[in-house]
Amino acid sequence: MILSIIVIGDEILLGQVTDTNSGEIARRFGPMGWTVAETRVVGDNADDISRAVSDALAHSDLVITTGGLGPTKDDITKTVLMREFGGSLRRDPEVEANIERVFAKRGLRLNDLTRAQALVPDTCRVIQNRLGTAPIMCWERDGKMLVSMPGVPFETVGMLDLAVVDMVKERYSPDTLILHRTLIVSGVTESDLATRLADFEDCLPEGMHLAYLPVPGYIRLRLDGIGVDRAVYDQCVAGLKDMLGGLLLHDGDATPAEMALEVLRGLGLTLATAESCTGGNIAHRITEIAGCSDCFVGGVVSYGNNVKTGVLGVEAADIEAHGAVSEEVVRQMAEGAARVTGADCALATSGVAGPGGGSADKPVGTVWTAVHTPAGTTTRLLHLPGNRARVIERATTEVLLDLLRNLRTVGQN
Amino acid sequence: MILSIIVIGDEILLGQVTDTNSGEIARRFGPMGWTVAETRVVGDNADDISRAVSDALAHSDLVITTGGLGPTKDDITKTVLMREFGGSLRRDPEVEANIERVFAKRGLRLNDLTRAQALVPDTCRVIQNRLGTAPIMCWERDGKMLVSMPGVPFETVGMLDLAVVDMVKERYSPDTLILHRTLIVSGVTESDLATRLADFEDCLPEGMHLAYLPVPGYIRLRLDGIGVDRAVYDQCVAGLKDMLGGLLLHDGDATPAEMALEVLRGLGLTLATAESCTGGNIAHRITEIAGCSDCFVGGVVSYGNNVKTGVLGVEAADIEAHGAVSEEVVRQMAEGAARVTGADCALATSGVAGPGGGSADKPVGTVWTAVHTPAGTTTRLLHLPGNRARVIERATTEVLLDLLRNLRTVGQN
Repeated sequence: MILSIIVIGDEILLGQVTDTNSGEIARRFGPMGWTVAETRVVGDNADDISRAVSDALAHSDLVITTGGLGPTKDDITKTVLMREFGGSLRRDPEVEANIERVFAKRGLRLNDLTRAQALVPDTCRVIQNRLGTAPIMCWERDGKMLVSMPGVPFETVGMLDLAVVDMVKERYSPDTLILHRTLIVSGVTESDLATRLADFEDCLPEGMHLAYLPVPGYIRLRLDGIGVDRAVYDQCVAGLKDMLGGLLLHDGDATPAEMALEVLRGLGLTLATAESCTGGNIAHRITEIAGCSDCFVGGVVSYGNNVKTGVLGVEAADIEAHGAVSEEVVRQMAEGAARVTGADCALATSGVAGPGGGSADKPVGTVWTAVHTPAGTTTRLLHLPGNRARVIERATTEVLLDLLRNLRTVGQN
Repeated sequence: MILSIIVIGDEILLGQVTDTNSGEIARRFGPMGWTVAETRVVGDNADDISRAVSDALAHSDLVITTGGLGPTKDDITKTVLMREFGGSLRRDPEVEANIERVFAKRGLRLNDLTRAQALVPDTCRVIQNRLGTAPIMCWERDGKMLVSMPGVPFETVGMLDLAVVDMVKERYSPDTLILHRTLIVSGVTESDLATRLADFEDCLPEGMHLAYLPVPGYIRLRLDGIGVDRAVYDQCVAGLKDMLGGLLLHDGDATPAEMALEVLRGLGLTLATAESCTGGNIAHRITEIAGCSDCFVGGVVSYGNNVKTGVLGVEAADIEAHGAVSEEVVRQMAEGAARVTGADCALATSGVAGPGGGSADKPVGTVWTAVHTPAGTTTRLLHLPGNRARVIERATTEVLLDLLRNLRTVGQN
């Protein structure tokens, strides 16, 4: 089964906005057994949209379009799709009621342009957009389906999960059981892991597939099962977890910050941060997760040395003797953060993110990390590749993964 | 002149990695007068790549492809492009020397697969990739050009700016003067600004164009001049700045954090942060900018109330009386951050980022901000739309823009 995605909008084509909708769609349909053939980004231009739609329908079983459904005159997707599928416009009372509801909730005055979003082609099936005003439209022809979705990512993602994925599942694979499980693995390269799991992969039953999704610092390993027996699938998952042993960091898909919060919560421990080179990014990665406040108490961004000494209590003599990027300083940062915030655990980083500031013995990418838990404080020296943004992000990931490893010991005591 | 972009790679098509290269290309070529016709994302599949290349060449003057140039067997772009343009492989000694240099620098052992990247079609012109191992290949035919670039964003963006943009400029518009200037405007909606500038836009000379690039919290306004006289262009810029008056925040393209650092640097002032609902994101946005340490001393992420009182010295009685999300508390957070870090200026946020934690009088999106400068402390109450991520990002933007506005007063004293 072939899926093509069409992303409509000048703002995306011109690079003013980065498209994330196509990835959200692919990440949902790929694991369900769909082959994503192509994603095409076109502007708000009737001929370009029309050509993309015809091409996609010729080569695919399912076409999903996003965008071009707004109330302004440059949003022309509806008109173009009527050129392809025919029909004329009818006023849909349910869509109109939905638009009125959305506007009332936002306290906005409804104008005629927006009210015209309630006009839908009489050749399509309408799915109510519970998160916005533009309705979702579905056409079927010769066993193929086209679904036109709004382009606002909040609405696209929301309505995929609320309605569109289930609607497609029901239409195309009513009796097929689709199973997925993601395991987070660290401490091994992708190629070494693949070698280690080669026999396991070769012996997987028909319909099962292992996907390697490497991320800087760890690997997401996803076991897909399409149309296989649940007991067989569960047995394979158990076998895979056995083979991974100590490399397995987490059962289930999660970011390093999500994993850390989950384990902290389980142990009833709180966390603080003391960041120099990561500059607040660890705290940001934690606090972007809703509900983090039951574990995360806060932290200090000790960029200047006076903040390291004045707020965190790092010894000025140690900064003088060893430099700010040193094991002694990063250890005192972590322990100082735990002390001043009253947290049980603390993470600290001090390094050279670049592009300037490197030296012969501490080149750009040199980062010291420290993890403080009730079991004690450990430190680690990293040499990270890449530019400033990559060093900051990778150091953030590494120190969160270190916390997870250290908390295993705490959990066993 | 028509440009098409082809992004090659299973990892992008499947949504494992978000493509940002096409946007980087479009943002460079659009302002140079190129019309971006289409971006197509295809997998590592010869037929799909081949079809995308033929289609793009049929409809465009310039085609840029990214990705599919790695050393492994699934990277097949080179083979497919030889199918289109003919020729046979030759070993390029300069490319080979470059690959050896890159590997020596990274301390890696060079294997035969990677060495094979030095084999290039004899029908193309090669541009050395100074940031990686895969060479850039250019073909010309019937006045059209195809440029094949590596897909690693660091290399794509780097080599666009080091070589490819200039090469295309030289080839297609050797005598055309291309001018751009971006102005940052705030305190006005896009539609009000457009109304205000309607006459100005109507009177722009041939070859000049005004582009509105709205971002949550402010508007980037870009004046493009293609083939116009520099004196005329400068006159238009001056006229535009006059019309904008107090709405103009910054002359030149910059993020809120970049603008803040520039102004602080000019005034010789230092900055600290005290973040509750933004959770470290303000510090992160500042510290992702290289060289920020001459102005930014650090900050406190005071997520828990004990960190607000213990580290920042907020009065517990005020938290009790007014709540953590209140004018009294956010003011004390900013002043406390300046005091404990010794900084001249400080920014503070305290709000309800959601999805939980809202109440009738302080719903999700309620954020108090404070800005402390040598001229005093000001506070502001925001009601921000959207989900948790949008509230965090927007509050970050708003408080940085508030700092800019307050520093105007400081600068005038």
